[in-house]
Amino acid sequence: MSQHEQFMAQAIQLAWKGLYTADPNPRVGCVIVKNDQIIGQGWHHRAGEAHAEINALHDAGHDAEGADCYVTLEPCSHFGRTPPCADALIRAGIKRLFVAMTDPNPVVSGTGIKRIEQAGIEVHQGILQSQAEQLNPGFIQRMRLGRPFVRSKIAMSLDGRTAMASGESKWITGPEARADVQKLRARSSAILTGVGTVLADDPLLNVRHVDDWYPHGESIRQPLKVIVDSELRMPTSARILNDAKVLLFTACERMVRADVETLVLPAPNNQVDLSGMLAVLAKREINEVMVEAGAVLNGALLRSQLIDEMIFYVAPKLMGDAARAVFHLPGMDRMAQNIQLHITDIRAIGQDWRITAVPEYNEAF
Amino acid sequence: MSQHEQFMAQAIQLAWKGLYTADPNPRVGCVIVKNDQIIGQGWHHRAGEAHAEINALHDAGHDAEGADCYVTLEPCSHFGRTPPCADALIRAGIKRLFVAMTDPNPVVSGTGIKRIEQAGIEVHQGILQSQAEQLNPGFIQRMRLGRPFVRSKIAMSLDGRTAMASGESKWITGPEARADVQKLRARSSAILTGVGTVLADDPLLNVRHVDDWYPHGESIRQPLKVIVDSELRMPTSARILNDAKVLLFTACERMVRADVETLVLPAPNNQVDLSGMLAVLAKREINEVMVEAGAVLNGALLRSQLIDEMIFYVAPKLMGDAARAVFHLPGMDRMAQNIQLHITDIRAIGQDWRITAVPEYNEAF
Repeated sequence: MSQHEQFMAQAIQLAWKGLYTADPNPRVGCVIVKNDQIIGQGWHHRAGEAHAEINALHDAGHDAEGADCYVTLEPCSHFGRTPPCADALIRAGIKRLFVAMTDPNPVVSGTGIKRIEQAGIEVHQGILQSQAEQLNPGFIQRMRLGRPFVRSKIAMSLDGRTAMASGESKWITGPEARADVQKLRARSSAILTGVGTVLADDPLLNVRHVDDWYPHGESIRQPLKVIVDSELRMPTSARILNDAKVLLFTACERMVRADVETLVLPAPNNQVDLSGMLAVLAKREINEVMVEAGAVLNGALLRSQLIDEMIFYVAPKLMGDAARAVFHLPGMDRMAQNIQLHITDIRAIGQDWRITAVPEYNEAF
Repeated sequence: MSQHEQFMAQAIQLAWKGLYTADPNPRVGCVIVKNDQIIGQGWHHRAGEAHAEINALHDAGHDAEGADCYVTLEPCSHFGRTPPCADALIRAGIKRLFVAMTDPNPVVSGTGIKRIEQAGIEVHQGILQSQAEQLNPGFIQRMRLGRPFVRSKIAMSLDGRTAMASGESKWITGPEARADVQKLRARSSAILTGVGTVLADDPLLNVRHVDDWYPHGESIRQPLKVIVDSELRMPTSARILNDAKVLLFTACERMVRADVETLVLPAPNNQVDLSGMLAVLAKREINEVMVEAGAVLNGALLRSQLIDEMIFYVAPKLMGDAARAVFHLPGMDRMAQNIQLHITDIRAIGQDWRITAVPEYNEAF
């Protein structure tokens, strides 16, 4: 690893501190370097507060003049919730700028770098780019494709079952796996489930075990709860409706609910238009969607090729063939239609195993 | 690791050379040591030929006098297919004997050691005992419990499916996993399947890819093929019947087949008495049974708590909920009835993952 990469790696490590809080903004980290020494560090804590570059410049103070700046994402050049970082770097007298990746928003991509170069500052791009991209899969996908990054969490037995036929499913996995699930929730902008899960389990789907995940003692950021309910079967007594942020998607145009924000988004077959739903969520600045649902919604998302990543928590147990399946995939009759997975990680989580997989969509079925 | 353990480890390594050939005898290895040097090595190649101790003594020649002997299993003291090894060790003038485990046959256990001790030879037991036991799970279980060691091989998708609804199942796993399956077959005394698999796939279930597994160029030892066929639906045209060694178990008393040896062993519900079947196989010197079957037979064996080990080959793909399940477990309605597994090994095999698991049977259901 070169010295430039080492400093950028430190910036990336700082950016991860915003994992649970930066949303809907990207997670960004920054270090200021002079004479091969880090003299300033910063990361973006949360929307509305200072960006990573500003925090790092503040940390460095007047020493920033003539120093190098390493930042995981191209500095902004526009007035958003805060003034442009590009101007602040220019004013501070930075000598060279190292950027891991350009802004994924095609409208503004490159404009920050251009502004800084025009001020006579030397700019280098692409240092540890793929590592930097891993910080913000949702933000990047929202900017590039206009939809969030969709991550489905599945707790199942080794024989591929998520609940008994009766619906009993507490608890398939052990406490370590369940704590790990809390981390997935805490990093997500929204939790997506189906009305079937609400009717069966009446879950809260909120973030609970956070302990010291919030470096500055911030209060828990609860993700938006999104429920797919084609026929509006959602009971008014559902505990999830007590949540401050709930959004219902339905295909049912015949009535309006007063107790929860409801969007009517029908597709053929009286189903919710899942692709349209994700577009709506992206417009609401939803970066990462975590799916916690049963075989029907998970299967529908998979058939629509909308799941970007799956996190399987596999319990070392057998539940038998009467128990509930993971993916309802009507029409998958031939092995050629099977969905191949690219497994990116396998590790033990307590007594269970966590498998991270990326579907490799090919033939539609 | 002590020096004694190092010599025993070498004896165990020699024993593994008989993995595919020693059956129905145990895999045994032996080293002769003098002045801290190995002067003789041997292992048991196959039934009817010399035991490990005799081969090692032969390798050492006259130098064996006053030497130490390390052997993975207690030397025999009776005339079987060959004369007793205990006498040969006494005659050779061995000074000390190191034994990993005593004979698992309760009738003769300890008699070889006693005979050797009575000849004035110092005997030490239990060195690397658990490693030595892993050599012969089937032989040991047959001697101790009167039934073979039952190992079920399951090739499945990550969502727990072994075939499409149509029965299509070629090939779920990749070539590396299938080659690994050949090794499981080659070490087994018998392959057990159900008539459903025969009707669906018409398999041969024989050992094919062996290459250099047979250290002395021995011809392939084909395991006995055992088929559970409660209602005698086995077609006379089945390819597996061309095999020299086939045994059919049925619950159907109404007719006798001329084309294949058939044993009538009924249990209630017109099923084959699986426990009785394994007792019959043990009497026929079957050590390790490999199950290659569908959800019905695998489920029945599991319900009877007769599977000792499962080898899952997990392909990174999704086959959907219409595809076939792994274990048919009627009556498993509550999570408390789930069968816990102790996972002893997980490793990548080509593109697939191999998971080795031992069921921890508790509540019957």
